[in-house]
Amino acid sequence: MKDLYFITSNKGKYKEVANKLIEADFKVIQKNLGYPEVQANSLEDVVNFGVSYILERFHKPFIIEDAGIFIKNLNDFPGVYSADVFYKIGCKGILKLLDGIKKDRGACFKSVIAYVNSDKQIHVFAGECFGHIGFEEVGDNGFGYDPVFIPKCENKTFAEMTVDEKNRFSHRGNSLDRLLGFIKE
Amino acid sequence: MKDLYFITSNKGKYKEVANKLIEADFKVIQKNLGYPEVQANSLEDVVNFGVSYILERFHKPFIIEDAGIFIKNLNDFPGVYSADVFYKIGCKGILKLLDGIKKDRGACFKSVIAYVNSDKQIHVFAGECFGHIGFEEVGDNGFGYDPVFIPKCENKTFAEMTVDEKNRFSHRGNSLDRLLGFIKE
Repeated sequence: MKDLYFITSNKGKYKEVANKLIEADFKVIQKNLGYPEVQANSLEDVVNFGVSYILERFHKPFIIEDAGIFIKNLNDFPGVYSADVFYKIGCKGILKLLDGIKKDRGACFKSVIAYVNSDKQIHVFAGECFGHIGFEEVGDNGFGYDPVFIPKCENKTFAEMTVDEKNRFSHRGNSLDRLLGFIKE
Repeated sequence: MKDLYFITSNKGKYKEVANKLIEADFKVIQKNLGYPEVQANSLEDVVNFGVSYILERFHKPFIIEDAGIFIKNLNDFPGVYSADVFYKIGCKGILKLLDGIKKDRGACFKSVIAYVNSDKQIHVFAGECFGHIGFEEVGDNGFGYDPVFIPKCENKTFAEMTVDEKNRFSHRGNSLDRLLGFIKE
């Protein structure tokens, strides 16, 4: 098994990723190194900036991941600031912002992973889950915006699904699948 | 006159600062160097991170400035992300988020300036302007959140004031005054 460091402070994410990458014979090790997340328009920019910062300070193969929800009618708000915005205005704030909007409530959850191999080559993988914002908070599972996000062709929110159900659609499952495909090659 | 570089892409801010610092016999030169603005809880953190980045790349005395509006009832949203949030949801978004809130609409505009002298010593100055968010957009002057911000003890928004009137209250005028006081010492 090869060692691969996942630079994150998020235990939940770590478990999800470690479980998945064992398939490719990687032993994923959580490393809470801390790195700056830059204000930017895209998750790719945030992740690329993080990679440059880490590359100067850490010299083993690693991955980082960033995710967010992009709401079309709000010009992609909260996007790269999803986590911070959630702590400030929550799902209630998102519902208020979409108040009076009946149809155009499309949203996309996105995850971007950067993988830096032992030759310090950088590979970036994105995963998306399209859907829409419901009219109220429903369900107790998951976290963050899960109670208001309904994936395409479904009528349940992420927060009404079991972990397995959610993983079938998940943006992070998706970006991880792409990373996995690349590593297996 | 001593040269002082203002690292900014914002010409309006540059003029305001140049005008003010001429008092202290500084010739302010605009330098559009570009530096990362980090995701953080405070403007001080954003500015300090910017300073470290610039210090590694630029070796003359300089200042940088960052500003934002912190709305109490929204847990200080939009705060350090004020500019980005404005481009996405605008004043209309802020009014929607405060919909139904009659009294508790307090807000604070804040400006933080970092000054790095020729000995590379860093000095940070903050300026604030307290007030509240009105119930609708009023006035055509100013920019950003000015049409919804009413400073304390006033009944006009920033966007209803002339530049001179606004400057009496302004958070940036305030942080600049503090920098000026320090430089004159």
